[in-house]
Amino acid sequence: MSVYTPVSEAELRDWLRQYSVGALLECEPVAAGIENSNYFVTTTQGRFVLTLFERLPAGELPFYLELMGHLARHGIPCPAPIADLTDHYLQRLNGKPAALVTRLPGRSLDAPGAEHCAEVGALLGRMHLAARSFPAYLENPRGPKWWRFAAREVAPFLDASKRELLQDELAFQARHRFPDLPRGPVHADLFRDNALFDAGRISGVIDFYFAGVECLLYDLAVCANDWCLTPQRGLDAERAGALLSAYGAARAFLPLERDAWPVMLRAAALRFWLSRLHDYHLPRPGMLVHAHDPEHFCEILEQRRGAAAPWAP
Amino acid sequence: MSVYTPVSEAELRDWLRQYSVGALLECEPVAAGIENSNYFVTTTQGRFVLTLFERLPAGELPFYLELMGHLARHGIPCPAPIADLTDHYLQRLNGKPAALVTRLPGRSLDAPGAEHCAEVGALLGRMHLAARSFPAYLENPRGPKWWRFAAREVAPFLDASKRELLQDELAFQARHRFPDLPRGPVHADLFRDNALFDAGRISGVIDFYFAGVECLLYDLAVCANDWCLTPQRGLDAERAGALLSAYGAARAFLPLERDAWPVMLRAAALRFWLSRLHDYHLPRPGMLVHAHDPEHFCEILEQRRGAAAPWAP
Repeated sequence: MSVYTPVSEAELRDWLRQYSVGALLECEPVAAGIENSNYFVTTTQGRFVLTLFERLPAGELPFYLELMGHLARHGIPCPAPIADLTDHYLQRLNGKPAALVTRLPGRSLDAPGAEHCAEVGALLGRMHLAARSFPAYLENPRGPKWWRFAAREVAPFLDASKRELLQDELAFQARHRFPDLPRGPVHADLFRDNALFDAGRISGVIDFYFAGVECLLYDLAVCANDWCLTPQRGLDAERAGALLSAYGAARAFLPLERDAWPVMLRAAALRFWLSRLHDYHLPRPGMLVHAHDPEHFCEILEQRRGAAAPWAP
Repeated sequence: MSVYTPVSEAELRDWLRQYSVGALLECEPVAAGIENSNYFVTTTQGRFVLTLFERLPAGELPFYLELMGHLARHGIPCPAPIADLTDHYLQRLNGKPAALVTRLPGRSLDAPGAEHCAEVGALLGRMHLAARSFPAYLENPRGPKWWRFAAREVAPFLDASKRELLQDELAFQARHRFPDLPRGPVHADLFRDNALFDAGRISGVIDFYFAGVECLLYDLAVCANDWCLTPQRGLDAERAGALLSAYGAARAFLPLERDAWPVMLRAAALRFWLSRLHDYHLPRPGMLVHAHDPEHFCEILEQRRGAAAPWAP
């Protein structure tokens, strides 16, 4: 169980009176997730997820919740925040900012095939289109500004060759910014464990708490670096082709995006190498879950620096 | 099949490009419904209902759609309107105002028991609470003002005793207005065919196109006159008790509401007697579905005038 803030059934029962979701039947802590405390909540009216926000700045929470609400009302299968009786998404519970969202059916996949990559690509394309009418703005909280901050923090823990790799990649990325790529709100963390499948179809995209405004192509690069990986950390041509083709059928690529693809794959690898290094060497006090191995994304970055990136649409 | 405006697969496929709901898989006209043209629409992303509005004044449609959207984001299982890529709920298709909404699981019940009446009562109570933060206003389009209009129109078709019953009930209702009863947006048409059940639980409330701001108790009276009926048109004490108790557990009644209950049951019977008389004697040109027999609600009205109304909470 990985929850930081315990919630008793009696506390939850009381708290739910502020909503119109019926009476509590069951509450179960969710093991996954390292950023927030999550509970599966079943009421007489449906299945929900309760999230207590442990890390996120309170000022950013409305962006995430409103974005999820916006996408949900565009038909995107994502958790829909539930408004309380005073018509607000954001509440407090046991001293923490808290929100109730719908629970989606399905399970995440460990070993997706090309058909699953096509499903996630198509949904990502539709999600980007739907998100473009979302009016609020939050800069990608794990963008280039954060890379430089994180790089300074983790540099002392790296050996000389890793430090050189990091500095070289930061310099490369600084030379390759793409101000003309289509931008908009992106998920920015769409790993396999953040997508749910039901009977072979994608049934949900979850965990929007790294979302922000960024190049749309970056979202796809984050996906590709997880969904289309070979055992050697390369990109599987068939799965990457399926991801890109299905995305492109929903939102046609610009020629500029094709050119930017190899750089974007490196940017996405750099971002997760940095955050894993940071979590590993500078864990937050009280962090319950063991940090992921940073080496995985270092290898992905090295692989992307050395190899041509397949492009299929 | 009861659709007034045909929609071809090619037209629908094109039209759906304005949404982020995926590609069309299947489209099937819906047989039920006499007011609009409805289609079940299945896409690669989910199940939806397409409605082409045939009767409703265009100015009132935003009220209905926004109300459904408001209730859905409060967790009420009702059709959630889907916003298009320009972020609007209301579109046009084949010359008619049109909207796409989510399709809910479940089926309506012909012969509900007390347990089903409790389900609908509880949901109605929660729905009324959630609706109270809805900011838009539309007067109940089938309220006292409309009764007087409809009564003038249908009077020539009635025999002397029916005409006297109608005039007497209108006069009685005019003497018993309840300005202090809690008011808010109500469904106003929650008959058995507008509620869906799945595995014994209520899974949806549909068809909000008679909604308006009215006494909350009126909504419950409309329900009771359909869900709790005996073969003699009386109210079954067990089912009516279950309906009222479950509602009262969600939203506590005022003493004033208990006093108003018998009058409200008569008002609800009068409203449907009048609309059925109107549809029967003055059908709209091109109306495809045979009108319901008005006699049913005349008998309910006479029964409510003669009998004490059970009250249980």
